[in-house]
Amino acid sequence: MGEVHEIPVRSGAGFTLDAGRRLTVIDPRGCQVSDLLAYSRDDVREVISSGRTLDYAETIRLTTGHLLYSNRSRPMLEIVEDTVGRHDFLLTPCSYDTFHHFYPDLPPHRGCFGNLAEALAPWGVTEDMIPVAFNCFMNVPVDGASGKLEVLPPTSAAGDHITFEARMDLVIGLTACSAPASNGGSFKPIHYRID
Amino acid sequence: MGEVHEIPVRSGAGFTLDAGRRLTVIDPRGCQVSDLLAYSRDDVREVISSGRTLDYAETIRLTTGHLLYSNRSRPMLEIVEDTVGRHDFLLTPCSYDTFHHFYPDLPPHRGCFGNLAEALAPWGVTEDMIPVAFNCFMNVPVDGASGKLEVLPPTSAAGDHITFEARMDLVIGLTACSAPASNGGSFKPIHYRID
Repeated sequence: MGEVHEIPVRSGAGFTLDAGRRLTVIDPRGCQVSDLLAYSRDDVREVISSGRTLDYAETIRLTTGHLLYSNRSRPMLEIVEDTVGRHDFLLTPCSYDTFHHFYPDLPPHRGCFGNLAEALAPWGVTEDMIPVAFNCFMNVPVDGASGKLEVLPPTSAAGDHITFEARMDLVIGLTACSAPASNGGSFKPIHYRID
Repeated sequence: MGEVHEIPVRSGAGFTLDAGRRLTVIDPRGCQVSDLLAYSRDDVREVISSGRTLDYAETIRLTTGHLLYSNRSRPMLEIVEDTVGRHDFLLTPCSYDTFHHFYPDLPPHRGCFGNLAEALAPWGVTEDMIPVAFNCFMNVPVDGASGKLEVLPPTSAAGDHITFEARMDLVIGLTACSAPASNGGSFKPIHYRID
């Protein structure tokens, strides 16, 4: 088993993941979201796509066995293990602007968006190249009748995890999410491991 | 009232829309989808964002009164009239690859994706810059309990329309959609008008 890396509270990390390797994202204390982005290492204009993935999967509830596709319709990651089964692939990472919108009375924070932009800059990824992220452990139920969505506390408990297998050479951005509502009102670190 | 333009069956159009002007997308025969993309005319790296929009609207059912946001969290379009109330903002435009996936026995078609890429090329928009589109009249119910989504025939009748008011100077891409399931199995033109 690979070494466990810690992403501190309200921060992010960028790293490479070779085709065939496995990335495990662990919620070490429970009830903590981690936004995941993936870019092709050969050409970072190829990026994870919620729209392609939801179209092919025919569900918004992605879990073990589902593929995450790029904007070029190529498989980037396969979910090979998932102890939670509740993740979000509808919403963009929290940012200064989302803090201003949802939490006007709290000190603003650059959020996952700013953390991802900094973490991915060494590979030439800019803010405008950040799409909808795969938000591990984020609990966003949709009411089928009205269409209303809610951001509820994650259902993940301490030690829960989701494991992805890379289908191409990737650059990964990963965070410990910074938004109060997404994380049940408190901020915890995220752990990850590459095997 | 502005002149009515026709987008022929299974094709697309690109045009500019100034801040304050209104774009009306009309389904002239009923049961026909039209994919809409919007880019800032000042910088086409600023583009319509499903993830920002759904986050701020707190619903996947967008209709009159809702704003469509850019990836920079700025309002691009406001929906000011809507005679249908059923549109999709989850899925990417149909493409060669989606035809291969969903209709392996039909002749392949470049779909809305190819049509949008060609229509938007004069403004420097490339295929990789095409995100989830706002799919006018596309009927994609989500089952809240299971997360499953379905692509059903549009509920729009002949003459139904949706009107958007531009909040910034825009480049617009618009199609008459090419995918069988999205359009109840037949392909019709789309009309639009700028006022």
